[in-house]
Amino acid sequence: MSQGKLLWKRAKNVIPGGNGLLSKRPERYAPDIWPVYFSKAKGIEIWDLDGNKYIDMAQMGIGAAILGYCNDIVDAKVKKAIDSGISTTLNCPEEVYLAEKLLELNPFAGGVKFARTGAEAMAIAVRIARAYSGKDQIAFSGYHGWCDWYIAANIQGENQLKDHLLPGLEPKGVPKGLAITSIPFKYNDIANLKKVIAENDIGVIVIESARYDFPTPEFLNEIAQIAISKKIVVILDEITSGWRMTDSGVYKLFKDFIPGIVVYGKAMGNGYAISAVVGKKDIIEQAQHTFISSTFWTERIGFVAALATIEFLQKNHVSAHLIEIGNIIGDGWKKLADKHGLDLSITDYKPLISFKLNYGDKNQALYTLFIQEMLKRGYLASSSIYVSYSHTVKHVEKYLLEVNVIFGMMKKAINSNTIETLLETQVRDDAFKRLN
Amino acid sequence: MSQGKLLWKRAKNVIPGGNGLLSKRPERYAPDIWPVYFSKAKGIEIWDLDGNKYIDMAQMGIGAAILGYCNDIVDAKVKKAIDSGISTTLNCPEEVYLAEKLLELNPFAGGVKFARTGAEAMAIAVRIARAYSGKDQIAFSGYHGWCDWYIAANIQGENQLKDHLLPGLEPKGVPKGLAITSIPFKYNDIANLKKVIAENDIGVIVIESARYDFPTPEFLNEIAQIAISKKIVVILDEITSGWRMTDSGVYKLFKDFIPGIVVYGKAMGNGYAISAVVGKKDIIEQAQHTFISSTFWTERIGFVAALATIEFLQKNHVSAHLIEIGNIIGDGWKKLADKHGLDLSITDYKPLISFKLNYGDKNQALYTLFIQEMLKRGYLASSSIYVSYSHTVKHVEKYLLEVNVIFGMMKKAINSNTIETLLETQVRDDAFKRLN
Repeated sequence: MSQGKLLWKRAKNVIPGGNGLLSKRPERYAPDIWPVYFSKAKGIEIWDLDGNKYIDMAQMGIGAAILGYCNDIVDAKVKKAIDSGISTTLNCPEEVYLAEKLLELNPFAGGVKFARTGAEAMAIAVRIARAYSGKDQIAFSGYHGWCDWYIAANIQGENQLKDHLLPGLEPKGVPKGLAITSIPFKYNDIANLKKVIAENDIGVIVIESARYDFPTPEFLNEIAQIAISKKIVVILDEITSGWRMTDSGVYKLFKDFIPGIVVYGKAMGNGYAISAVVGKKDIIEQAQHTFISSTFWTERIGFVAALATIEFLQKNHVSAHLIEIGNIIGDGWKKLADKHGLDLSITDYKPLISFKLNYGDKNQALYTLFIQEMLKRGYLASSSIYVSYSHTVKHVEKYLLEVNVIFGMMKKAINSNTIETLLETQVRDDAFKRLN
Repeated sequence: MSQGKLLWKRAKNVIPGGNGLLSKRPERYAPDIWPVYFSKAKGIEIWDLDGNKYIDMAQMGIGAAILGYCNDIVDAKVKKAIDSGISTTLNCPEEVYLAEKLLELNPFAGGVKFARTGAEAMAIAVRIARAYSGKDQIAFSGYHGWCDWYIAANIQGENQLKDHLLPGLEPKGVPKGLAITSIPFKYNDIANLKKVIAENDIGVIVIESARYDFPTPEFLNEIAQIAISKKIVVILDEITSGWRMTDSGVYKLFKDFIPGIVVYGKAMGNGYAISAVVGKKDIIEQAQHTFISSTFWTERIGFVAALATIEFLQKNHVSAHLIEIGNIIGDGWKKLADKHGLDLSITDYKPLISFKLNYGDKNQALYTLFIQEMLKRGYLASSSIYVSYSHTVKHVEKYLLEVNVIFGMMKKAINSNTIETLLETQVRDDAFKRLN
């Protein structure tokens, strides 16, 4: 048995589920053969515990490593900060510098609050938005983390979140007093949004600025109109989408759309834990009227890493690179799928480029087969790729040579009904589903 | 104007309140003269932005830097981890090693979940405990962070938390559906606890294992009896108290007391952001039945730092050192206070040793005067000291020589009613108050 598999067995004995993040569980890829643990990583290369090397054409730290693993410039600055202290009785100046930088990049905003994780930043944003609006009810679309305010949507029935998150999510441990405080609506569905607004007393609207696809101008316009007429705070969750399409949020592509709060995380520190709540002055100032404070929010590494990462992103026009590479991957997939007669569709958000197979209940087995065969060829692969600055055209060309072979194999397996026969692992679990 | 003060002015323009943690705000010490920011720190020495050096006889990173600033061994391991990757698509093995270590040190427990900040870990613990008990109501004592479940106590009136936290805390932005989900009781007050239990349908009891003082055996016994008879989950918040009195939690001093969940943070990684929820097997397994997942919980630095810190704590019997030094400081304060006729009392929890002045509404001005005069003598001082492994008997002796002078000055100022005349700064804000 591989070292990774052995350690995963140990992990399951001491950590419920084996780790702290569903997206890093082998059950989400190819359960019995996924390497699970890394010993070393650099650029887009990653080594498992048995010394096998893989090229990461998959999740890149679940979107965190936007520049690639072990970026020399960011890491050098972090190590320098470590040498002069990270958590002291006094504050680190970088907290202020990062806040100023974020305000420069988000001209609509007048203040910033920092946290460590994405869900934590979303909880701060929701607290502040509720304080501002004076209303408890939230209308949301998309995925926004594990916290009570969000999972509360499922108190009304487990299917509320089924198209936004994992199906069958139980809201166990979420107080029943939160029932009907979070109401989902369908992304890009104006009629559904209007219905939710009409039937409730909504103070806050929460959406992802983009996931696999973008909001339509009409949908955004409707949200803007509703927000103004009803004094609703609009929170844009850019934890996943941020930093990949522009010099900060995707929302900057939506001309004339002014958010109330934008939340960043993941890529902002190239893998170091840092998240931020960026809000309009009058809204963010509510943080002075409700208690929001935590020791590790003032730890220095996150600020230093984010400052270095943002500087790198700007200087090297990283977002343009991500879009270009994402386009090449998407076009490559499409061309190869057409060549082999494989039925799939490609999503619109290029820096997190994804293909979706159209084979109904065979999809999961097919995705698993794809991952399995790419693993054999030295790739961590998935149906989605978080493109990083370290992915080059050459990487993609080599990768597509292998995809060509596997897509052919997949089509043959579909035709001959031999998918299960080819699988050397259990089939992966259902991935997060989201409305598009 | 000092560089620190200038930067604090800038901070207030871009961050509500100026930073992410109340305990690092100059208003909590000596508002106009506190150095606010650091440029460098090592051991218990800390340099401000103007190059002034101070000895930290105060908060040591608000309790995070238990070994002292920039511990060579911990930092070397973190830097080595940085060189081989911190957030990748695969998991880091150290998450498992740390979970195993925590179970070894907490034999009552059967599983661990990790987070980045203390309040986040408490929110996970509360979610799991509510899921297990099937009840939403919590009885609590002490301070447990900024999250909704806790601040909800103030929905019934702002005075609910006044003796546990800051007075006058508004629960703005906390949903009203959470009213009567969190009910405070007085620490070490059995009658009050019994009343809260009798009048509500409590599923979870939350206390700090220690703050400035300890629970009485009778109080703990009562909690244990109630927990068993009512199937209530007892959560011990050891975010502040942990690692300072034993090889892990203070609760280990309470013979025969078996908690449901223990939560660690702060000191566990010597300043690197890491927190942990350690629970009995059947309780922690509820994490499999409610959605709890976050990208940065799997970032590697926190695990590596905690493993190195815990190893150092054990190898060097750090807790014995903290207790010894805390004792010397407390005895020294008491002796000097007696000498000058200054009326103060010393708290029981030695690793976070504190003195409390008994001069009513003159207290805050007197504390401020103490901090002001110690600053002039090169000390970051406060009425509480988080003792670290870097504090030596020699440090304390030199420190007490200065305290001798200031205590004399304070007594004289009280007698001559000249406290305000001596102050060169605004008076500090009211500190957290907690029941003892």
